[in-house]
Amino acid sequence: MTPRHQSAPVASRSYSRVIRRFVRMGARGEVMRILDRLHPADMIEVLQSLPPAEQKAFLDILISHPGSASVVAELPGALLTEVLAGASDEWIASLVSRQPPDEAADLLGLLPPERCDAALKLLDDRTAANLDRLMTYGRETAGGMMTTHFLALQGSTLVSQAIDRIRSEPDAEMVFYLYVVDDINRLEGVVSLRQLVLARPDQTLQSIMNSRVMRVRVDQPRSEVAETISRYNLLAVPVVETSNVLAGLITVDDAIDAMTDETTREIYRMAGLNTEDRLTTRPLRSFTRRLPWMILNLATAIIASSVVWLFEESIAQAVALATFMPIVAGMGGNGATQTLTVVIRGIALGEVNFSSARRAILRQMAIGTLLGLITGGVMALVAFLWKGNLFLGLVIAVAMIANMLLAGAVGAMVPLVLKRLGLDPALGSGVIATTFTDSLGFLIFLGLGTVFLDSIR
Amino acid sequence: MTPRHQSAPVASRSYSRVIRRFVRMGARGEVMRILDRLHPADMIEVLQSLPPAEQKAFLDILISHPGSASVVAELPGALLTEVLAGASDEWIASLVSRQPPDEAADLLGLLPPERCDAALKLLDDRTAANLDRLMTYGRETAGGMMTTHFLALQGSTLVSQAIDRIRSEPDAEMVFYLYVVDDINRLEGVVSLRQLVLARPDQTLQSIMNSRVMRVRVDQPRSEVAETISRYNLLAVPVVETSNVLAGLITVDDAIDAMTDETTREIYRMAGLNTEDRLTTRPLRSFTRRLPWMILNLATAIIASSVVWLFEESIAQAVALATFMPIVAGMGGNGATQTLTVVIRGIALGEVNFSSARRAILRQMAIGTLLGLITGGVMALVAFLWKGNLFLGLVIAVAMIANMLLAGAVGAMVPLVLKRLGLDPALGSGVIATTFTDSLGFLIFLGLGTVFLDSIR
Repeated sequence: MTPRHQSAPVASRSYSRVIRRFVRMGARGEVMRILDRLHPADMIEVLQSLPPAEQKAFLDILISHPGSASVVAELPGALLTEVLAGASDEWIASLVSRQPPDEAADLLGLLPPERCDAALKLLDDRTAANLDRLMTYGRETAGGMMTTHFLALQGSTLVSQAIDRIRSEPDAEMVFYLYVVDDINRLEGVVSLRQLVLARPDQTLQSIMNSRVMRVRVDQPRSEVAETISRYNLLAVPVVETSNVLAGLITVDDAIDAMTDETTREIYRMAGLNTEDRLTTRPLRSFTRRLPWMILNLATAIIASSVVWLFEESIAQAVALATFMPIVAGMGGNGATQTLTVVIRGIALGEVNFSSARRAILRQMAIGTLLGLITGGVMALVAFLWKGNLFLGLVIAVAMIANMLLAGAVGAMVPLVLKRLGLDPALGSGVIATTFTDSLGFLIFLGLGTVFLDSIR
Repeated sequence: MTPRHQSAPVASRSYSRVIRRFVRMGARGEVMRILDRLHPADMIEVLQSLPPAEQKAFLDILISHPGSASVVAELPGALLTEVLAGASDEWIASLVSRQPPDEAADLLGLLPPERCDAALKLLDDRTAANLDRLMTYGRETAGGMMTTHFLALQGSTLVSQAIDRIRSEPDAEMVFYLYVVDDINRLEGVVSLRQLVLARPDQTLQSIMNSRVMRVRVDQPRSEVAETISRYNLLAVPVVETSNVLAGLITVDDAIDAMTDETTREIYRMAGLNTEDRLTTRPLRSFTRRLPWMILNLATAIIASSVVWLFEESIAQAVALATFMPIVAGMGGNGATQTLTVVIRGIALGEVNFSSARRAILRQMAIGTLLGLITGGVMALVAFLWKGNLFLGLVIAVAMIANMLLAGAVGAMVPLVLKRLGLDPALGSGVIATTFTDSLGFLIFLGLGTVFLDSIR
């Protein structure tokens, strides 16, 4: 989104209560006056802090405020869709025309096709054609992120001419850099505003430009763009089409937004959640999105239970086995979850590669074994004090040690194997690993219990 | 750390194999020549991809390369500590002197106090005093993040004079902005390089500056600084001491690093992991860090097991209860985990507030109930087909529905309550919630099983 590089009011959270009062009183003018002093990011915070009824009233006022163009684009998805659904085509066209192209295309993308076309018809031809093109790129690609408002000049341009161009384009994003292109718009180099200031007015851009420019392709995934910007500490990265034609520009603030989304995705994947499943999602939608995952979990739980079923006869004779078996399985599950988390995060941060994978697995097995020794030892003591049976304690300790070792191995191997297969290491790791620790935990504990059945009864 | 705004070589990953070959051959000169063409971020990637023995050899060459100053600062912690431990005081002083002040202070902070003092003595007095001061700020504060290389000029400075100053300070970070201060260095405003270019040479900074500058305090936590930069789409934020004296500058790339660390922390907290627990951590260290969490988990597992123990007599008579009880508990745990994840992420993204909390809890309970109805229904059918007992199926279905409803309630309430108490909503949520779903799952299922014992046998 358009970087507002500098100014912003000091502490604004206190405005929320005042605004709420004025909104309730219907004091439109007062609210408008407060909005004059608020940063767009703070307007959204105020909006979110209001109860639903006042939210609507505030939104009505907000939308008519001249500073609202940049706010609307950053509204939470559900609210934005609602606002757009209730607005006229003219209002949408006017809103869209006040946005930078990347935001405008995103807004239009939220509309049903026929409404989108209606809004495009109300815009001037050049803008409409530009937006139409931007909308052809997938939302999750560089093309879908980029703005087309940027300065690109030819290498023969003089420094003085370039400065005049900057003067005449107050809307272009990120005028800390000028891009240098050839006569068919192929990217040739970049000139920073600083270089421009330090150069003589009669030098050409060609003579001062840096021709080694980091760039991304228009079809590169959003997460790769964010990774490129963060890895090379860039403030902006140019986007090129095939044959190196400059198509747009992505700024660091968009990379930050992409990183935040990627974080949500990473955290959500581990819990088998759909990214669209938010606090504000309607329950029925959340339900249908979570159902397949829960059915999968049920299937794995049935697998683990069928192991218990094999030992029903032993349990009937030594029912203490039933009391302790959830401990063995549960501790293995916790151990596997910790290992998984470390390995998945390590993969995400690029800390794992072919030479370190084997070492990582061995390390996690060692950690699991050590944890099993201590927690198994403690549990053996607890079981002995509880049931007065030393053998029962030994059986549970051995089962816990074995299962924790296994938890380390499985917890490390599952994401690494998924990654090796080209799959997302987080997706499903948890289910797979805990199916192992549950089933094998039951198998080891109940198996040992059956072997030593006479001693533990 | 220092933004390298622009250029970077194209695809570099292929260099890794070539470098590895040259390192094995001991072809120092060849490696140096390849390094000339590599971006620092890529040098680190190559380093990490090498097996340990070759890593050492490559590091030796890397350190002697003129471009290595910015690489060393970004080495992974463990490797950096190793490098510093093996280096002479002179080498460290020379390395430190080539870093921007924020990086230099971070490097010195990794040394034992006496070695740090020795290195400081080898630097010129002004640099040493500056670094000494920077090191007094905590690593996790704005003071610990900021650089002191920035341009601050008085309001009476002419635009032409300011441009001369930029020319004379090639090292200052982020010369896209000049900060305007009064005679005792209090922050008064900011001028963007763009404004400078567009202004007349004889205007004063005062007359063109923007006086509403977003700022952070020197003692603000790192995560708040990152949040400020990302929230207001800033490229840099000035850091002030009490009474508004300008102390330093934090750039957006440092905010991105802080966000990445914050993500790790968030993901780790949910699994009860210590942030220092990485793939490369020595197993004994990981073990001691994970042990308290596992002991806590053991305690909660024992609580859940004691519920089972209460029903040992029923289980002895209807041992199928033992087979199915892990399913009831496990499904509740999965449901709670999904709900927790959505709520914790919602809190982290600022989507929850007092008015929406109650609604969020009710929604999650509704979702849990729906999921319980379907998965419980499926499970009832499975149990009936498996055991040929309709009552057993009904008991398990009712228990699953109740436990999933509970999972929604507890999963939503636990992080909200932790947050309300001023605690981290992620830390411990999982343990608390699954203790509930395990214990109450066992209680409901085994309780119902006991009531209908005659029918399910």
